[in-house]
Amino acid sequence: MVKELKEQVYCANMELVHKNMVIYTWGNVSGIDRDKGLVVIKPSGVAYEDLSPEKMVVIDLQGKIIEGSLKPSSDTATHLALYKEYPSIGGIVHTHSVYGVTFAQAGLDIPPLGTTHADYFYGSIPCTRDLTEEEIEEDYELNTGKVIIETLGNKDILEVPGIVVKNHGPFAWGTSPGNAVYNGVVLEKIAEMAYRTLTLNSKATPAPQYLLDKHYFRKHGAGAYYGQK
Amino acid sequence: MVKELKEQVYCANMELVHKNMVIYTWGNVSGIDRDKGLVVIKPSGVAYEDLSPEKMVVIDLQGKIIEGSLKPSSDTATHLALYKEYPSIGGIVHTHSVYGVTFAQAGLDIPPLGTTHADYFYGSIPCTRDLTEEEIEEDYELNTGKVIIETLGNKDILEVPGIVVKNHGPFAWGTSPGNAVYNGVVLEKIAEMAYRTLTLNSKATPAPQYLLDKHYFRKHGAGAYYGQK
Amino acid sequence: MVKELKEQVYCANMELVHKNMVIYTWGNVSGIDRDKGLVVIKPSGVAYEDLSPEKMVVIDLQGKIIEGSLKPSSDTATHLALYKEYPSIGGIVHTHSVYGVTFAQAGLDIPPLGTTHADYFYGSIPCTRDLTEEEIEEDYELNTGKVIIETLGNKDILEVPGIVVKNHGPFAWGTSPGNAVYNGVVLEKIAEMAYRTLTLNSKATPAPQYLLDKHYFRKHGAGAYYGQK
Amino acid sequence: MVKELKEQVYCANMELVHKNMVIYTWGNVSGIDRDKGLVVIKPSGVAYEDLSPEKMVVIDLQGKIIEGSLKPSSDTATHLALYKEYPSIGGIVHTHSVYGVTFAQAGLDIPPLGTTHADYFYGSIPCTRDLTEEEIEEDYELNTGKVIIETLGNKDILEVPGIVVKNHGPFAWGTSPGNAVYNGVVLEKIAEMAYRTLTLNSKATPAPQYLLDKHYFRKHGAGAYYGQK
Repeated sequence: MVKELKEQVYCANMELVHKNMVIYTWGNVSGIDRDKGLVVIKPSGVAYEDLSPEKMVVIDLQGKIIEGSLKPSSDTATHLALYKEYPSIGGIVHTHSVYGVTFAQAGLDIPPLGTTHADYFYGSIPCTRDLTEEEIEEDYELNTGKVIIETLGNKDILEVPGIVVKNHGPFAWGTSPGNAVYNGVVLEKIAEMAYRTLTLNSKATPAPQYLLDKHYFRKHGAGAYYGQK
Repeated sequence: MVKELKEQVYCANMELVHKNMVIYTWGNVSGIDRDKGLVVIKPSGVAYEDLSPEKMVVIDLQGKIIEGSLKPSSDTATHLALYKEYPSIGGIVHTHSVYGVTFAQAGLDIPPLGTTHADYFYGSIPCTRDLTEEEIEEDYELNTGKVIIETLGNKDILEVPGIVVKNHGPFAWGTSPGNAVYNGVVLEKIAEMAYRTLTLNSKATPAPQYLLDKHYFRKHGAGAYYGQK
Repeated sequence: MVKELKEQVYCANMELVHKNMVIYTWGNVSGIDRDKGLVVIKPSGVAYEDLSPEKMVVIDLQGKIIEGSLKPSSDTATHLALYKEYPSIGGIVHTHSVYGVTFAQAGLDIPPLGTTHADYFYGSIPCTRDLTEEEIEEDYELNTGKVIIETLGNKDILEVPGIVVKNHGPFAWGTSPGNAVYNGVVLEKIAEMAYRTLTLNSKATPAPQYLLDKHYFRKHGAGAYYGQK
Repeated sequence: MVKELKEQVYCANMELVHKNMVIYTWGNVSGIDRDKGLVVIKPSGVAYEDLSPEKMVVIDLQGKIIEGSLKPSSDTATHLALYKEYPSIGGIVHTHSVYGVTFAQAGLDIPPLGTTHADYFYGSIPCTRDLTEEEIEEDYELNTGKVIIETLGNKDILEVPGIVVKNHGPFAWGTSPGNAVYNGVVLEKIAEMAYRTLTLNSKATPAPQYLLDKHYFRKHGAGAYYGQK
């Protein structure tokens, strides 16, 4: 039905292992086929070494299982909320990678301290507010998606392709499952650089806005000149 | 006699190497056969590359060697104290992994700063008090077990599957030798995340109790919905 | 035309991967043939696993492509400015390696805290000033080269074979592409040591000048006695 | 002449690479044949991948080359000073491993914060004083050995099998070249644990002396019961 997407989502999940982003079952990747209205996502709690493309779960945008004998990721409702809100994204990743979690647990945005950040993220990588007790009791995973959407506000979703959820960890996204993982790895590396910068110099400040603009727009948009395009 | 358990305890010890939890001889894993009343444990001071299932030492709950030509781990009395106190545990691990030792040497509990912690540990991972000089002189390894038991108090042993012993290092346990090592690896990763969070933001506080509850109970107990069960 | 140099520049770029200095496309190495007035540099935005010696781009000192079907690195103008200013250098490397970036983002020179530093760098590894908005708008990459030159002042370029550019990251150089990468790796390791020293003891001071002199000059210059020469 | 010792010293040098203690040429190991009065040491500035047992340099205790076509390590005089002073040691290692250098550059002793430390080192791992300008001008490497000896004072050399030299890095020793490297690796791991403990809790204090005694003497001396002896 969505054979190629299942293959892509499988590969993107395995890439988390190859990039040291996960241990055990601590992460999940999904992808969407917008034409068919179908989402493919990792099964819940299955170890990466036991995964195969066939084990990926196919669901519709209401979360109904369309194909596959396993239960989808427990974070499925968060993924679906984001796909519904943002038509431009094609893949989503969630991990418990160390430096993303560090900022999530510290309750801090990741400030744009340099050009590595600005090459991929336009402005801070925000940290969400706490979910309320009511939000967690009502529908935890759905409301996690809603608080991400609330935090992003009217930002362009592909200009800020990741976030950290308070006391939880990072979510990232992109134009495809593979691109989502790419952005997740970048977020983790940027978070590591920010962690080290701030522990070395607690007074470090964001780079000048004109430098951030320069780097972001030499890689993105109409005036981009980085790469071979 | 307990051939399968010896194989399991051997594999669990080797898993410590594969997960970068030990160098040289800095750790040991044991397992118990409750029906036979026998414990299998790593021999003392033997390098991991020289281990084999046959070299595992079989002892009874009084520490008497039942099978094997090598001396059991010098920490054997600690393991036995825990097996006697807690009928629900099937395996125990002790290591000198870096971040667990960091909290042990800092004399600090590992606070439940986020959902990674809450997915496995219900509440703080406690740090024991100092042993007294008398306790060390009398029976160091037995009293290490006793101070662990004292610190855990009336907690459910499988809801807090690990601890750090003051100025020493982590002990973890589980339903089997392999599950004990799994929990030991989780403890180490949680400790790393807590170390980085607290060095980035010394005022970071535990996650809200309702978020910790949500994560713990979506994976454990009657209402769990994580995974394929 | 410059076949051997293309091979060298290719190998030096791949060495960045082997030494864990880069992920994705986060770095570039160039080399120069002074006799022919030609520079060989990595193509822009191409992943390391897709590189080959044939894909290296040959340009003249004005940046005109002489050989190759790909666009040169977006940082080409920075490399050319340095080659023109410093006749003694034969290779240049730029990366976003973590500890070099940490000092760049912290806006701090890397002080000569010990002999590891002094074995390769004579005095601090400087951090440049911010580029102004005008400099960035006018010609960002060229002016990055100019601010490096301004910061180095009248230092001997081979006695300080690297620098960190404010809010950006490290550049290093040497007598050849391979030597530039060597110095880049050394800069990264020294930066790590300095990071750890200063987070452990914020009052740590540079080593005595006579110790720095001793180490630098036992490896460099007429009185050197380190190694087999 | 000392064929087996050359093989041992070669293997011990290569072990530094396998344990991630060195990059490039940043370390050296030696061994001594007390009966013959001969020392075998790594040649100066030779990369580890180019080493072989035949390239090890054989010298006498005055530093005269007895066998080998390469120059011995530039740190040879330091090694010889220690061999002459301490008849019980059979091997010496010097590295620029990160955490040992961190304490050397911070100018701090490594305090005995826990049992990992106490299992191998009895008391603090001391940091030497600065060498004076005169000492460095007169005979730097010999005086490095002398300041190590001065710092150790009347301690038992095998109870404190390593030290950090101010602003320089660690030296360690043992009963053989391999044992020296073992102690060097242990020193590095202990230094890492101490670094993390002190950055997490700047008020962390040494473990109680009776706990340090217990751990040291359960592994060393007449009452030892750790291991298979």
